[in-house]
Amino acid sequence: MPQGQPLSVPDDGLSTRARRRQPVLAVHTGAGKGKSTAAFGMALRAWNAGLRVAVFQFVKSAKWKVGEESAFAALGRAHDEHGDGGAVEWHKMGSGWSWSRKQGAEADHAAAAAEGWAEISRRLAAEQHDFYVLDEFTYPLKWGWVDIDEVVATLTARPGSQHVVITGRDAPPALIDAADLVTEMVKVKHPMDAGRKGQKGIEW
Amino acid sequence: MPQGQPLSVPDDGLSTRARRRQPVLAVHTGAGKGKSTAAFGMALRAWNAGLRVAVFQFVKSAKWKVGEESAFAALGRAHDEHGDGGAVEWHKMGSGWSWSRKQGAEADHAAAAAEGWAEISRRLAAEQHDFYVLDEFTYPLKWGWVDIDEVVATLTARPGSQHVVITGRDAPPALIDAADLVTEMVKVKHPMDAGRKGQKGIEW
Repeated sequence: MPQGQPLSVPDDGLSTRARRRQPVLAVHTGAGKGKSTAAFGMALRAWNAGLRVAVFQFVKSAKWKVGEESAFAALGRAHDEHGDGGAVEWHKMGSGWSWSRKQGAEADHAAAAAEGWAEISRRLAAEQHDFYVLDEFTYPLKWGWVDIDEVVATLTARPGSQHVVITGRDAPPALIDAADLVTEMVKVKHPMDAGRKGQKGIEW
Repeated sequence: MPQGQPLSVPDDGLSTRARRRQPVLAVHTGAGKGKSTAAFGMALRAWNAGLRVAVFQFVKSAKWKVGEESAFAALGRAHDEHGDGGAVEWHKMGSGWSWSRKQGAEADHAAAAAEGWAEISRRLAAEQHDFYVLDEFTYPLKWGWVDIDEVVATLTARPGSQHVVITGRDAPPALIDAADLVTEMVKVKHPMDAGRKGQKGIEW
């Protein structure tokens, strides 16, 4: 696969090197499979480049756990013990975030989602990580739990070269407009349509 | 994200457990980003489930290397040294496969692609791995280097519960028909359209 050639070269006065360090805002949306999976695949690549990776999962249940979390825990240990790749943090909303005093104490998902975004916003301002995955973040946006205009303003103004990948169905148009890279995952065929069950190692 | 519910339950006499062990043939196609990345993300999940993962990259140049390869090498070491996850093998076509005597000796990509498929076919018959990624395998199919009918027949008849994920643009209709899970990655927006360069940790 050859590296892509730009269709045009912008007259922005930047060197090629400077352009290679520009931060990317990516959105994976659509009803097909692979939105989160591709985001974690990107995080793998980022980890290998030595970037500090942080995953924030806006999932409803703390019990819901994906295999990727364990795999990234192993990569995080490889970083801590052998200096391989970048550092890894993995946070799940569940019924409260790991950094929150309210952890496990409540089931107010709207408040938890807003708190998650507030923390991400603080970390972006502090340039705490290099590569952020905001998994299933389109849902709190869709449901109005987090204000889309504030999210777009914060992401657009984020300092440094922090990359952000947002996943979930029904990405708001304002988010798509702000993004550099948008892929829609379209379902062509899914085994559950034929009545098949999820497969261990495939679905979770 | 709730686990999907089947639209119908097939009258196939299988228990839920047996249905959960059915092998999956997945295809990631389309012109958008994320085809290979999502396949590697799936491999991450498979690794965590303890499945024996093997990646076969049908790429043209041996020099072309992705960050995922190094990350999976780290996961393979975590398996070998600590018993974490599953075993990992990673093979690139380049100008010859790692198992081949002809390695590096020739530039006959058609022969190398055919040899790669012959080896995969042998491994499927021997149930050597549990989870196969055939990365960019649609191209040798498209160019007629590997016979699509033979590939479909071999995949359809593969023994045990071996999962196979095939990536690349322009997946042949016969492959789509044979697949259980097909996702088309559609490009909505790409930074290179705006003249931006590939980003380290994002594009490679």
